[in-house]
Amino acid sequence: MTTPGSAQPLPSRSGSVGDVGERGLIEHIRRRLPPAPASVVIGIGDDAAVATSDRGALQVLTTDALVEGIHFERRFSTPADIGYKALAVNVSDIAAMGAAPRYALLSLILPASLPFADVDGLLDGLIDVAKANNVTLVGGNITRSPGPLVVDVTVIGAVRPRRILTRSGGKPGDHLYVTGTIGAAAAGLGWLREPAGQGADLPEDSGLARCVLRHRRPEPRARIGALLGRSRAATACMDLSDGLADAVQQIAEASGVGARISAAALPIHEAARRWFSRDGGDPVAAAIAGGDDYELLFAISSRARGRLRHVIQQARGVEITKIGELTVEPTMRIERDGGGIEPLPAGFVHF
Amino acid sequence: MTTPGSAQPLPSRSGSVGDVGERGLIEHIRRRLPPAPASVVIGIGDDAAVATSDRGALQVLTTDALVEGIHFERRFSTPADIGYKALAVNVSDIAAMGAAPRYALLSLILPASLPFADVDGLLDGLIDVAKANNVTLVGGNITRSPGPLVVDVTVIGAVRPRRILTRSGGKPGDHLYVTGTIGAAAAGLGWLREPAGQGADLPEDSGLARCVLRHRRPEPRARIGALLGRSRAATACMDLSDGLADAVQQIAEASGVGARISAAALPIHEAARRWFSRDGGDPVAAAIAGGDDYELLFAISSRARGRLRHVIQQARGVEITKIGELTVEPTMRIERDGGGIEPLPAGFVHF
Repeated sequence: MTTPGSAQPLPSRSGSVGDVGERGLIEHIRRRLPPAPASVVIGIGDDAAVATSDRGALQVLTTDALVEGIHFERRFSTPADIGYKALAVNVSDIAAMGAAPRYALLSLILPASLPFADVDGLLDGLIDVAKANNVTLVGGNITRSPGPLVVDVTVIGAVRPRRILTRSGGKPGDHLYVTGTIGAAAAGLGWLREPAGQGADLPEDSGLARCVLRHRRPEPRARIGALLGRSRAATACMDLSDGLADAVQQIAEASGVGARISAAALPIHEAARRWFSRDGGDPVAAAIAGGDDYELLFAISSRARGRLRHVIQQARGVEITKIGELTVEPTMRIERDGGGIEPLPAGFVHF
Repeated sequence: MTTPGSAQPLPSRSGSVGDVGERGLIEHIRRRLPPAPASVVIGIGDDAAVATSDRGALQVLTTDALVEGIHFERRFSTPADIGYKALAVNVSDIAAMGAAPRYALLSLILPASLPFADVDGLLDGLIDVAKANNVTLVGGNITRSPGPLVVDVTVIGAVRPRRILTRSGGKPGDHLYVTGTIGAAAAGLGWLREPAGQGADLPEDSGLARCVLRHRRPEPRARIGALLGRSRAATACMDLSDGLADAVQQIAEASGVGARISAAALPIHEAARRWFSRDGGDPVAAAIAGGDDYELLFAISSRARGRLRHVIQQARGVEITKIGELTVEPTMRIERDGGGIEPLPAGFVHF
């Protein structure tokens, strides 16, 4: 990011980002951010940011983009929702490594016609997640888009060497656990996509409204990821960005094992279950295929069950549910309610 | 990035990226990359990458996106040119801080119709720059674009605390220097945009062909940036992504001083000078306004001139030219050949 000229007029709150320009936007963002902690040596306004590393820790690096028309639609999500989610999905990736997020870079690719007020909205959501997770926005880049709005975020985290959680450490016999509930984001998006959905108002405390909120503002399990890393309770971990079925398959394959999960054990969000069942659909298939929940899936060896109890005690009300186990036989299977065993269907793929 | 299933078929060399899908593309990229050094603890294929920090060094963080239709056009640049430039411009930002680049994250936003072979092209160019600058691609993200091709790169570098070069350390009386030549990238792009330019073949050793090459493949001044940091020769430094006039203004404003440069001293690329003059145009105005040269502008105090000589000796044939100085009076001026002094025109702004 570059420092704007001191003679730069303050951007007007009306108008589009094309009127304000790159320098005006950067200066506006800089003023909106809370003061940076002492760990930030050079923040926004130079060729690059400079920051301290945690002593004795490794760097954890991840990037994820939200693209209009692919990951969100402006009629379904407010700018604040988009800014929130753009950072949240990256914090989720850091958490899935057992690491703590530290710094973020924000790459904004903006249609010139985007209302300037929408940039403030994006920042509102992003700053919320940054505050909640102790992340400092240290820099980035703003450029014009000839097409969709793109919000691309990089997060740099820190982890001690022995606390890293990978996908590949699972062993046969390890139990599989998942945080929170699954299927909510997919149900919420499904409702928004219904002809009746977009415009309709849901009561805020309804189950379906909570599903829509999960699509718009998934809560990264930063605390639980860090607890799992610190306690060395988990042998493998990843987040559910592409759904539970995908995550089970990824962990099993990376670990060179198979997996069996139990449909009856799955913590399917209640309103999502009703939504998926509404036309005689299969709520289990829909819930495990649905992406965007950003819960964590992890494996626990029999030795580590005491440590897991400790993590559960500190999880502040987030449920942690045993859903199955890793197996010697390298197949992915799901045990249905009636006792039948079926192959696990493939997960959600973004592309 | 996620690990593809082991049963994933090898992507075919024909077809589009939409046929290959995210997993196939990631696996293909992973196989194309050289083996990672021991500093990479977890590379491509987990929720995030994990890598060591340089002991006693600070992290340097930058991100920059190339957007089709804004920063490049596919009829003017090959996929390899685009991949090259996407990493090169980030390495340039790291160099401008006096730092060394270490790791890169690649965020690809791809139209589904993009030929799969073009991803190989992008990688060819990116890997060239990575090898030349000791950068390891450790992760990233691939998603579909409903519009333009976007290549967004993050580079993480390292710098020792006393070697950081900012924009804000300049003092009145410091001399301003620039590496290499200016105006070449703007002249090359100008030629490509002419009706005759796109299709025509230039002799490879012609001056204008070298200008086109500068637009397509700017050479980041990584070595000189690191030398300037290590020797503590410079009081301020930045790269010429948005042109010389802009960079002079940025350094002067960030340092709270003014600047005066001499038109006669400017190292304008010879073929660019001829190009800008062809219809009676002003080559100085065009050369200092033209962006994309990715040379370095830096300030040297009178005490540090001996250290600068040392840097020049190690610059391996890259010219370093004195073009002016920082002044107490907070104005930006240019001394014309005839001796007249004019305000420095504003630089190039991407948005």
